[in-house]
Formats: sequence, structure tokens, C-alpha cells
Amino acid sequence: MSPATSGSSLPSWNDGATKQSILNFVADVTREGSPDFVPPADRIATFDNDGTLWVEHPMYTQLIFALDRVKAVTPMHPEWKDTQPFKAALEGDMKTLAETGEHGLIALLMATHPGMTAIEFQKIVVDWITTARDPHFKRPYTELAYQPMLELLAFLRTNGFKTFIVSGGGIEFIRPWAERVYGVPPEQVVGSSIKTEFQMRDGRPELFRLPEVHFVNDNAGKPVGINQYIGRRPIAAFGNSDGDLEMLQWTTMADGRRLGLIVHHTDAEREHAYDRDTSFGRLDKALDAAAMHKWTVVDMKNDWKRIFAFD
Amino acid sequence: MSPATSGSSLPSWNDGATKQSILNFVADVTREGSPDFVPPADRIATFDNDGTLWVEHPMYTQLIFALDRVKAVTPMHPEWKDTQPFKAALEGDMKTLAETGEHGLIALLMATHPGMTAIEFQKIVVDWITTARDPHFKRPYTELAYQPMLELLAFLRTNGFKTFIVSGGGIEFIRPWAERVYGVPPEQVVGSSIKTEFQMRDGRPELFRLPEVHFVNDNAGKPVGINQYIGRRPIAAFGNSDGDLEMLQWTTMADGRRLGLIVHHTDAEREHAYDRDTSFGRLDKALDAAAMHKWTVVDMKNDWKRIFAFD
Repeated sequence: MSPATSGSSLPSWNDGATKQSILNFVADVTREGSPDFVPPADRIATFDNDGTLWVEHPMYTQLIFALDRVKAVTPMHPEWKDTQPFKAALEGDMKTLAETGEHGLIALLMATHPGMTAIEFQKIVVDWITTARDPHFKRPYTELAYQPMLELLAFLRTNGFKTFIVSGGGIEFIRPWAERVYGVPPEQVVGSSIKTEFQMRDGRPELFRLPEVHFVNDNAGKPVGINQYIGRRPIAAFGNSDGDLEMLQWTTMADGRRLGLIVHHTDAEREHAYDRDTSFGRLDKALDAAAMHKWTVVDMKNDWKRIFAFD
Repeated sequence: MSPATSGSSLPSWNDGATKQSILNFVADVTREGSPDFVPPADRIATFDNDGTLWVEHPMYTQLIFALDRVKAVTPMHPEWKDTQPFKAALEGDMKTLAETGEHGLIALLMATHPGMTAIEFQKIVVDWITTARDPHFKRPYTELAYQPMLELLAFLRTNGFKTFIVSGGGIEFIRPWAERVYGVPPEQVVGSSIKTEFQMRDGRPELFRLPEVHFVNDNAGKPVGINQYIGRRPIAAFGNSDGDLEMLQWTTMADGRRLGLIVHHTDAEREHAYDRDTSFGRLDKALDAAAMHKWTVVDMKNDWKRIFAFD
């Protein structure tokens, strides 16, 4: 059997319709002479990150990073003790923080992500991701990548696919560890970004991070980001929330064989269970669209033998 | 001999210091055990396009494309007969057109590049690049790629480099033919861009091109674009004008072995001769910087056996 049809590369996936839909798709587009054959150069697969490749509950990992950064730099900002959303962030008052909404979230990001060079930020991310622990699983966040999805990434690459991350999260937050964890190099990470500026400082060239949004790679921004960064239309897309709806539409509503897949968080015991009613990774419109467009929906509880490598 | 040291892959380069500087660099960074060894994943090489990989005189090819597009769509714009810069464009009055400056250039681009989907624009570019001819060489523009640079691109890839185009020109103008001509896939093209918007039209997802600048990938924009798209610092950069100065600084003013190279247009007979005094591809500050930073300067007349494949 060819690597595309054996399924031996997806050991953490239970046999069944979900796994089979992946195997069938890959077999169809890779088999020479198949009416659905796609040349390797056009085998572009895009993966959302939060909730699709790693855990996003109880909140996005990058938000936890931002909260930790607020604490780390608060000695330089005594005024934060009396200013929202910083007061709530420092006190761990998630309810008040949530009430500050998108405005508060952006304030947190802008207080912690710019004001340094790209290389300095990269170092902060690497230090944090190496030492921080998820309080529920008591593991580094990079160990909270979903083992079946890691197998799927590798399986697609074995079959000639180029795998990209297409995240609403910050591109410079993901790149420093994506190659080690996902096997995806920096140039194949697409994400949201703030503006940077080239400056000569003391005779050294530097890229300085500015407190201004450059691009929001979420919702309708995802197909735009895909076109901007990749310049080809994917033939397979993997997401888990309404933020991935437009990416899935752009990928699957086109001629030729396509695969759209949604990871549905159904496993309250081994991970978290949520869909239509959550602030982080709401899956509502995209779940309805999945039925309409015949996208594959992964039932994490029943389709995955294990969620994490350590299970 | 290893591929890095034989030089047999650069047949259109005359032997001498210029060719040797390339061979030495590649040998140093690819030889296992070398103090300058760079792992393949970090062998990032960035190439300017206009004047570095193909002809940019008497004017940028994308400007000729824009002028042809003005003529093609002028029936829908009767007012252009009396409005600059369109009047000058339609009359082939390059002097008046030049006097409209950057403002006029942007007006031309905004009149011809947006207002359609990304796929429609791609088709227009492919049709044009297949049929248009350079009036001086009487050849398709894609045949005006520099043969020695095509050999250099291939030579670097043979030695494990990932080659990127980093152009001030439009990313969606270059991508449709860069793979065929340069062997560089769309996802390895970085360039200037206008904004695009995702829309559902008659139930079909479309990316619509808007008359608004998204990013100018020139001068200080080049290191920003490199960081944004590639996310790694190149170890080799190739340019020909002041627009490449910051890319060359960002690439070479860093620790470890680096290569900066400037193509100097010195061959009035076989191509064009220009440097400090030209509107297209001015080479002034970057030529001074080359001496200071010991960048390799290619003397096209003396370093290249032939300029084009058809020579």
C-alpha cells in the first residue's frame, strides 16, 4: 500500500469515517493518473493554530503570555495599578478583564508586544514558552499540541504537501517554536502582526516593533493572508472555529478535489468541551457550514485515540 | 570537488575575483566542519528583481505593463484623454509622464491594478507577459532575465539554499511567472502589494483587489518585508540599486559569514549602462556602501560571459 492509503501514519486516529475521509482525499490527489491528481507544488495545506493544533482553553496561550508580560514589566508602569485592563490583569480578575473586550485585549497586546526589536521579542517568546506551564495540565504549552494533528501534519508532508500555519495569533509569537513543535518553518507561518520599522541604531541595523496593528489574520483576513503570504489557493484547510470559516470557504469552494476539516472540541475529560458558547474559539456558523459543505468534522472524543503525546 | 567549489554551475561567469567571492562564500557556509557552516534551513538568499534578475531599462517592466493596461481599458475612461498622467501615458509622452512623479505613477497603478479579483489580475498578467515584447531587444520580457543570475539561483538551490525574490515591484505581478522563469514558487516571492478583500459574490468566495496601498517593499521596507514574510534573516542578498541598500545592510551587518552582492550595469552594448544618474535603478549610496562593507560588485561587462540566454 502507498503511504497515502495505509493510514499507518495516523496511529492516534481511530478507524472510521473521519480518518477515512482524510486518507481518501490524500490518496485521490496524490495518485498518478487519478482524475483528482494535484502536482506536489500545488499541494498547499493550511492549519489554524489555537484550538486546531494546540489547546486554546481556558484562554488563548498568547493572552496568557501577554498577562505574564504585564506582570514582568509592571515595575516600569506604576500607573497600571489603577488603570484597566492592567489592574484586572495584575489581579488575575478575568471577569473584569473580559468585560474590557477587544479594546482591553488590544491595550494588553500593545503594552507588551511592541517597544523592542524583533530579535528581542523573539528571545522573550522563547524564554517564556520554555518555562511557562499550563496550570490545568501542568505541562509546557508546547506539549499541549494535539498528537493526532502532529501526525496529520507529518502525513501530509510525507505525501508531498507543503504545510502552513494560518493563525489569528501573532506571527512573531508562533514562529520561534513552530518548527520544533510542528515541523513548520518560520516562512510557512502566516499570522496577525504589528508594524515594524527598519532603523540604524549605533551603526547596527534593527527591526523595531511599533505599537500599531499591521494585519489581522482572522475571519475574512485569513484568505487575504493566505493570498498575501502563500500566493496559491490551498487544497486542504484545517480549523476549529468561526475564525476559520472564510479560510475553509476559500479553500473548498473551488474546482477540483478539496478537503475542509473542523476539529470539534467534544472531550471534557481529556481536554475541554465547547462549541457555540465560548469566548475563545467559538464554533457556531462554521459548524453549520460544515454540514452544508460536507467538511469533515473531527469528534475529538471518539475520533482520537489520544489527545496529547503524553496521554 | 564539491558542487560548491567547482564553479562548473556558473558557466556564464568569467573566472576572477567576483565569481570566486561567490564560490568561496558558498563553500564556507556549506562545508561540514567549517567554522562558517550554516545549516540548510538557515541558508536564506534574497534577490531583488528589477535590474538584478531582469532588465529594468529604459523603464520598469511593470510600468510598461501599466501603460499597456491604460491603453487596454481607455475606452471605459473617455476622461483620460484630458487628464494626467493618463493623457501622457496614452500619447507615449514619457517626459510629461516622468514629471508627474510618484503621484502620477501611483495614479497609473491604481487605475490599472485594482478593481478586479486576484484571479482575474493573475490572468491579465499571464496574458500580457506571454505576448508583450521589449522594443529594444524584440523579445518577451521573461527572456530578458540575466543568464548568470539564473545560474546563480540554481547553484544556490543545489547547495541547499532557499531562494526568495524581494522586490519593490508588485508581488502579484511577479508571482504568475516567477516559478517558470526563476524557479521561485509564489510563496517565496516578497513584493509590494495593494489591499485585497474577501467577499462572497453570488455564493462564490472571491478576493477583490482594492485601490489602496497595503505595503511598499522597497528601501527600508525590504528588511521589514523579509521579516514579515520569511521570518529569518538572510545570509546572502543580491541587489543592484539604492532600493536594495537596507536589505544588504540587514543581511550582511550581522554575525557569521554573509554575502552581499550588487549587480553594476556597466555594459551599454549588450544591455544598458547606468548607475548614479537614472530614474530607474539608481545606484549611488549602495555603491559607496559596497566599498565600505566589502560587498561583491558585479561588473556586468567584464564578469559576465553573456547577459542573456539568447546571447
